[in-house]
This record gives sequence, C-alpha cells and structure tokens, in this order.
Amino acid sequence: MLSVREAIETLLGQSACCVEPESIPLPEAAGRVLAADLRAPIDVPPADNSAMDGYALRHADWPGPGGRLGLSQRITAGSAPGRLEDGTAARIFTGASIPPGADTVVMQERCEAADGAVRILELPARGANIRPRGQDVRAGQAVLAAGRRLRPQDVGLIASLGLDSVAAFRRLRVAVLSTGDELVEPGQPAGPGQIYNSNRFTMHAQLAAWGFDVVDLGVARDRPGAVRELLLRGAERADVVLTSGGVSVGEEDHVRDTVAELGRIDLWRIAVKPGKPFAFGAVGDTPFIGLPGNPVSVFVTLLVIARPFLFACQGRDDLAPTPLRAPARFRRKASSREDYLRVRASEDGLELYDNQSSGALFSTGWADGLARQPADVAIEEGDPVAYLPWPLFD
Amino acid sequence: MLSVREAIETLLGQSACCVEPESIPLPEAAGRVLAADLRAPIDVPPADNSAMDGYALRHADWPGPGGRLGLSQRITAGSAPGRLEDGTAARIFTGASIPPGADTVVMQERCEAADGAVRILELPARGANIRPRGQDVRAGQAVLAAGRRLRPQDVGLIASLGLDSVAAFRRLRVAVLSTGDELVEPGQPAGPGQIYNSNRFTMHAQLAAWGFDVVDLGVARDRPGAVRELLLRGAERADVVLTSGGVSVGEEDHVRDTVAELGRIDLWRIAVKPGKPFAFGAVGDTPFIGLPGNPVSVFVTLLVIARPFLFACQGRDDLAPTPLRAPARFRRKASSREDYLRVRASEDGLELYDNQSSGALFSTGWADGLARQPADVAIEEGDPVAYLPWPLFD
Repeated sequence: MLSVREAIETLLGQSACCVEPESIPLPEAAGRVLAADLRAPIDVPPADNSAMDGYALRHADWPGPGGRLGLSQRITAGSAPGRLEDGTAARIFTGASIPPGADTVVMQERCEAADGAVRILELPARGANIRPRGQDVRAGQAVLAAGRRLRPQDVGLIASLGLDSVAAFRRLRVAVLSTGDELVEPGQPAGPGQIYNSNRFTMHAQLAAWGFDVVDLGVARDRPGAVRELLLRGAERADVVLTSGGVSVGEEDHVRDTVAELGRIDLWRIAVKPGKPFAFGAVGDTPFIGLPGNPVSVFVTLLVIARPFLFACQGRDDLAPTPLRAPARFRRKASSREDYLRVRASEDGLELYDNQSSGALFSTGWADGLARQPADVAIEEGDPVAYLPWPLFD
Repeated sequence: MLSVREAIETLLGQSACCVEPESIPLPEAAGRVLAADLRAPIDVPPADNSAMDGYALRHADWPGPGGRLGLSQRITAGSAPGRLEDGTAARIFTGASIPPGADTVVMQERCEAADGAVRILELPARGANIRPRGQDVRAGQAVLAAGRRLRPQDVGLIASLGLDSVAAFRRLRVAVLSTGDELVEPGQPAGPGQIYNSNRFTMHAQLAAWGFDVVDLGVARDRPGAVRELLLRGAERADVVLTSGGVSVGEEDHVRDTVAELGRIDLWRIAVKPGKPFAFGAVGDTPFIGLPGNPVSVFVTLLVIARPFLFACQGRDDLAPTPLRAPARFRRKASSREDYLRVRASEDGLELYDNQSSGALFSTGWADGLARQPADVAIEEGDPVAYLPWPLFD
C-alpha cells in the first residue's frame, strides 16, 4: 500500500499548472490566484505625511515654549501643500502631506492656537509624527508572490499601490461525475435499495469553495456506455476529471475499465482511513482522479490527497496545510493505515466523534476538523496530535 | 477608554438578526446561514446495507467450513432485494441493501464461489459487515443548528437526507462608504497629497467573503452634503451602514456630524491597537458603524470589533473565534491598549512584522494572522500568546 505522503508526492510529480493567466479587475480579484509576482509601482505612502492632527514646523524654528509661530497654511488630507514659509507653522491634519521645508509635526494637544498663530508648548524630536514616504512599501518591492490566493486584505493592499487589475490564473475547470445505480437525487422519492447522492454535492461545494469552475457531469449509471460518454465530455470541457465511486475492484465498477480504455488508469491502495481505493490516470490527455465511493472517504481523500494536486494545477503555492498540535481527549488503538479522525476542538483538547465509519457523513458536520493518527501509532489520552481544522484546507 | 471586550459586548447588546429566512436550492447553499435547526426527515442509511463486497446469509444457516450454500440472489447497490430463501446465500455488493432474512455479510476474500454456490470458509459474528439503518443519522434528529454557515460537507450531509433546499437567512446587506478628499481610485493618476483608496477594497472584499451583499456607496468627499446623501442612500438600501474614516474629533470629519443629525452617534475610544476611534450609531433606524481611517485599523477593527455585530445581524451563531496558543519569537513592551500584532506562524512560533504602524497595510499581506497582546502585559520571547490565523475570522 502507498502511504499518504507517497500518494501526494506521486500526484504532485505529475501535476503542472495548466491554466493561463488573465487580467482581472481588482473588485473581482478576491479568491483568485496571482499568476505573477506583484511588484509595487510606487512608494506607499507616496509622500511624507502627518500621523496626526497638529502643526507642522521646521524644528529649528521653534521659538521656545513661550514664543508663537504665525500660521501660514492649512493642509488637509488630499491637498497639495506649498513650501512652508520660514519661521511659520502650518495647521495639518492626519494623512495630509508634509509641506516642503517642515520636518516635524506637533500633536494638537501640545499646542495652543489663537489669532492666526500657535504656541507650541512642548517640542518633540525632529521628524516626530511624520510617516515617511515609502515607509510601508518601496517602489519595485515584491509585495505578493505568484501562486498566492488573494485574501481580502491583499485586495486592499493592491489598491493601495494604485493598481486596478491583477494578473491571475483563470479558474481551474474541474469536471465532476458521481457514479452508482443506487443514487437518487435529493428532492426525489427514494425507492428500496436507493440512497441519496451526497458526493455530488460535497464535491461540487468544496471545489467551488476552492475557487474552481465546476463542470457538473451529473450521475452515471453503472453501465459502460453512460460512463464513457460523460468522461469524454468532462475531458473535453475541463482541466481535470474527478469522479466518486466506481474505482474499486468490484464487478460493478465500470469507471475503471472505461478510463483505462480512454487513456490510462492506476488503481492505488492508499494506507489511509477513511479512503483506501483511489485512482489516478487520464482520459485522453486530461488528468483523471477517481475518489472512493463512501461519503466520508470522498471528503477526506478530496481534502488530503486530491487537494494538493488540484491546487498545483491551479498554480497555487500553498499545497500543504501546516497542522496544529492539540492534546487528544480520547484513546485510540494503532491501525496499519494513517487515520483522519473527525474531532471537535475546545480549550481542553480534541474530542473524537464516536462513529468513525466512512459512511457517517454526519461526523464531518459535527467536527471542527481532522486529527491525524499516523499508521501504527496508538493515541493515549493527553497525547499531542496533529490537528487540521477545516479552514486550513481552504 | 472602552476595552475591546466591552466594545464587542455593547455592540452585541444592540444587535439583532435582521434578515428574513428564504428557501435556497441546495446547490447554492454553501456559505449561507441556516435559518432554522435542520432535522433529518429520514434515517441514514435508509436501510441495512452491506459494508463490503461479499455474500449475505442467515448466520444460523452456515453449514460449516466444508458445506456450501446455493446462491439465490445477486444484489447490487441500488437494487431492491427479495427475501432470502432459507438455506441459501446472496451475492451482495458494497452499499447494497441486505435482503430480509439475512443477518450477516461475509467478505468475499473469506469465500469460494463456484457453480451457483458459495463455500464460506470462516464465519464472522452475526451482524458482521452490515451497516444498520439509521447508523449515521436517525429520522427526527437535529443535524445542523440554526445560525450555522454551511460548509461544503454540510451541503453533502443535507443532500444525504434527501433535501433539495434549505431555509437560510437572506444575505445581510451592508452599505460601504469610504471618506476622504485625499483618496484617489486605483487606476487613476494620483496628484500631490493624494493616496490610493484601499479601505473601500479591503472592506468590500472582506464583507463579500463573509457572504454579505455589499452596497458600494463609493467615496464621499469631505463635504457634509455629499456625506448626507450617501448615508441616506445606504440606510435605505442596506441593513447596516459601514464607513471608514471621518469619525475622529478632527475638524474635517463630517461623517460624525451628519450621522448625529440623521440618527444618533456615539464616538468610542477603544483601548485597541491599531484602531482607537470607532463610532456606533444609526442613520434613521439603520445601524451605523464608523471604522477608523488608517488601513490596518480598518482591517483589524472590522475583524475584531465589527465582525461579531455583523455576524449577529446575519443570524450566525459563531461570533467569537477561539484563539490558538503559540510561543512568541519576539519581545514586546506592554502598552495601555490591547494590541493586535501582525505575525507569521511557523512550527517554531510566531514572528512579528517589524512595522506595526496602522498605516502599514503590507503587514496584513505578509502575516498569517493576528497575535493578541493584552493591555498592560509585556511579551517575552517564548511566552505563549493568543494567535488568530486569518481563517478563524471566516
């Protein structure tokens, strides 16, 4: 059996960013992936400016606590100051540009202004309360790296540089197919032996949350012809084809044979729980990933094993989430497979959901994330374990 | 000065869920907030079914390791089995319904089948390899609670219950206004004294990431008439009005006076860094939140102080993120205000960005999250500190 790490590395070894860059208007850039390092075209702030409301002067002009300086300008944020007249001060507001000739700002609480002049009771050090040009970012500096999925504050940062668009990769297109004669769609009556199709919805929602375009191929009945037509349609329209079910060694698994016929397929037995059967191959030239059929197996293998591959195809650089460490509030025997346990986190540690069956999808709604139990390692109460809260997979 | 906690509690004391429930088709439900507890209408699984590919039999019928049972049925997933004939076995596949009369499934690796009969070499315990009806969820059970923002796996879980729509709150509408004569829009040339408007983009992107509908009011120049018209428009179209800038005690702050005239406003000095000035009030009957003007102050107060209020208005129940603990890899003097430091996390602990100025928006792109330094507490190298990675605010 393949270890989880070997499976991920094998997938990454065959991955390549397969999406083109495009120009995206800034208001639509959140959640998109930068296609090139972003460099600052300007200094931020673009000019020396006042950190507070007060008075700007030349430090050497201070007449002492008793003397007064005439007010020669009033500079609000957004206005262009003139040169400061010798021996005068300027009224200035937060964010306003420092006038040429001034080198210090005194906060208004340290001043008394009256009749067009100001008394500065206490003089700070030269340069005080001035935010110098380029303090935050210097022109030419690399600000955000290619491969980054843009967070809201990144969009603000890019705006502060004066840019109204970014080079982002187009969204990866992922075709999704679920298979199984037993599946009935939500909202329809379920006959005897049938179950509701959850995998289609889990996969679709998770892929969309990752910012991919989902090509929904629907459900293939367990007949080779139906599977073949849908796989070909997926390969034509998408960058990656993803299926759930139909890749084990069971007699009724037609996905396996059809992918083999249309391209190539490797069936893997991955030492992972839930999830063991996993397939990787291609439909024509389009990469193919076959997830297991059980609902929790689908979800866990999508997050743990397929995600790094899909992120690499999308051009993202954050492929491996860094797990946190938290104490277990449970015991669990060692198993020969790496186990991804559904757990809830509190300040006391991690609580285990009692039914860790691969069919118990309820566990994924109950849990705050996954705890990783390495193969052949038992967990005792209080042991620190690797914890992956759901948002780490975003 | 108000503590951060007092500020949040005061806001929550005046918050109320102000959005109506609506029915949302399941494929659009991810990211929406449940408006009512969701109860399972059915058992999941809906019938006893096989956990593997193998043979179903009545445990008492086993003829011993040498005997054979005739095969009377073949049951694939999705088919409706007939009653198991006495003294026979049924070929059965993973997920297929257990036929009435059978009580045990033997995995195929423990069997030899030939000529329409099967030899069961090793009999497991009665009930083995059967996933009983209702094992995952029982009809009537509360599955997801009102106030939950639906994650991808929740959508799958709801699908598994056969539901094709959910009762979700309509999206909260938040009107966003940024103010300041110094602001110029990205893509435009900036004149002397001007800076690019980042707050509008940060606020817009963050509110949209939280699933709100953003009513973008644009930028108000620092004139009372312009501010008044935009605030009225926001109050009419949105559930909450949010501004950045214009709420300090500076002479040029017209938002404060205009909101006071159109409703009410309280100016707060919150013991928080970055962020001190913060306003709360109403434009007519519409709640009003005035964030500070500096870019990092806007972002931090939006996440830390405004977010719980906005989430409560949206009907969400996860108002307070639970911080993690991580060791500081830096020292920092005590301050009289609670400080939200931009930090990067690694396995060794938290690294501090060197420029913690409220203007240095670059720090929010560099950082992985915020470390909280309580008021009047110094941080020494190695001290465990409260750490809030960005995804905790989602």
